[in-house]
Amino acid sequence: MHYPNGKKLSVDAKKKPLPNPTIYSNRGMTLEEDINETNDYYRDTGKAIIHKKPTPVQIVQVDYPRRSAAVIKEAYFKQASTTDYNGVYKGRYVDFEAKETKNKTSFPLNNFHEHQMKHMESIIDHGGICFVIIRFSTLQATYFYPADSLLKHWKNSMNGGRKSISLESMKKEGYIIPIQYHVKVDYLHIIDMYYSTNGGNNNG
Amino acid sequence: MHYPNGKKLSVDAKKKPLPNPTIYSNRGMTLEEDINETNDYYRDTGKAIIHKKPTPVQIVQVDYPRRSAAVIKEAYFKQASTTDYNGVYKGRYVDFEAKETKNKTSFPLNNFHEHQMKHMESIIDHGGICFVIIRFSTLQATYFYPADSLLKHWKNSMNGGRKSISLESMKKEGYIIPIQYHVKVDYLHIIDMYYSTNGGNNNG
Repeated sequence: MHYPNGKKLSVDAKKKPLPNPTIYSNRGMTLEEDINETNDYYRDTGKAIIHKKPTPVQIVQVDYPRRSAAVIKEAYFKQASTTDYNGVYKGRYVDFEAKETKNKTSFPLNNFHEHQMKHMESIIDHGGICFVIIRFSTLQATYFYPADSLLKHWKNSMNGGRKSISLESMKKEGYIIPIQYHVKVDYLHIIDMYYSTNGGNNNG
Repeated sequence: MHYPNGKKLSVDAKKKPLPNPTIYSNRGMTLEEDINETNDYYRDTGKAIIHKKPTPVQIVQVDYPRRSAAVIKEAYFKQASTTDYNGVYKGRYVDFEAKETKNKTSFPLNNFHEHQMKHMESIIDHGGICFVIIRFSTLQATYFYPADSLLKHWKNSMNGGRKSISLESMKKEGYIIPIQYHVKVDYLHIIDMYYSTNGGNNNG
């Protein structure tokens, strides 16, 4: 995200507390930027309408200078209670979250908050298409990972199981998203495939 | 919306420029509060998952005090490029905007921005359920108004036609939403009715 002063917002500002020092979501040509480009491409070519939700901000103080726009003078980043992206594809509701890790062997589950997991579970219950896009930046590998698989691992971790998803599980339960020039993260392609072969998340 | 200092944010702060002095969206027990309550009820009773999107904010300056959360010191309210509410109902994508007017005889079309109208048109094209909820607060009447009807009036106004939707058109093309105790603005009820009788916005 670029702001008017040319500075990029650091991860620390966006996510608090920072769950894991090896997680980045806003640095360089990030996964977020790639997804935004992809969504623009989908929109321009009439494939789907997917938007990133605005960053949730708790506003504390607003000034109203005469003759000019209201200025927010004090505000804080809030933890998101839902996921970052949603929209419509072929009439269906699509909902997902994107995360990047520098880890090489597993993806830590503490990247997700409990209310985000509950949200994803609700979306599946209501027949929505729900997944996460996970990039292992060091491995230059980006996965489409169905929310039902994520929920399975997360529930297991809540019951004392493993606190991360191994790269092996990711390869087995997820789908690699090839990086292309125009469509950096072509997840619709995987949705078509996953939902025709699998009958949707509901049948997990 | 309540903020930590107990103050409510005035309309002027949220929407700039204010399109019409008779439009309110955040005062008293507003339409927004009624819809939020309704959405909570829908969520709690497993009927649908609909959320209000966070207010879009352009962040200019962020301070990082040691040992505490990042503080946004300068930010501005941005004009929304989409609608305020979206989510999933029976697997389908639902997208809507809510507006309140004190007018008694018509609803002014300048309450909607061009990019919002384009967004709604796209949602219809992609098979989503798209509508607006319009409250005539003085008349204590709340309407479910399909986006295709709104687009028709809006395009007509762009070609020199009438700049508002008359109450007569609203009554003819819209559906009154009865105010109930638990479900203040029961729009799902109208969706069920409208989409079964009408075959959806696409055939509108």
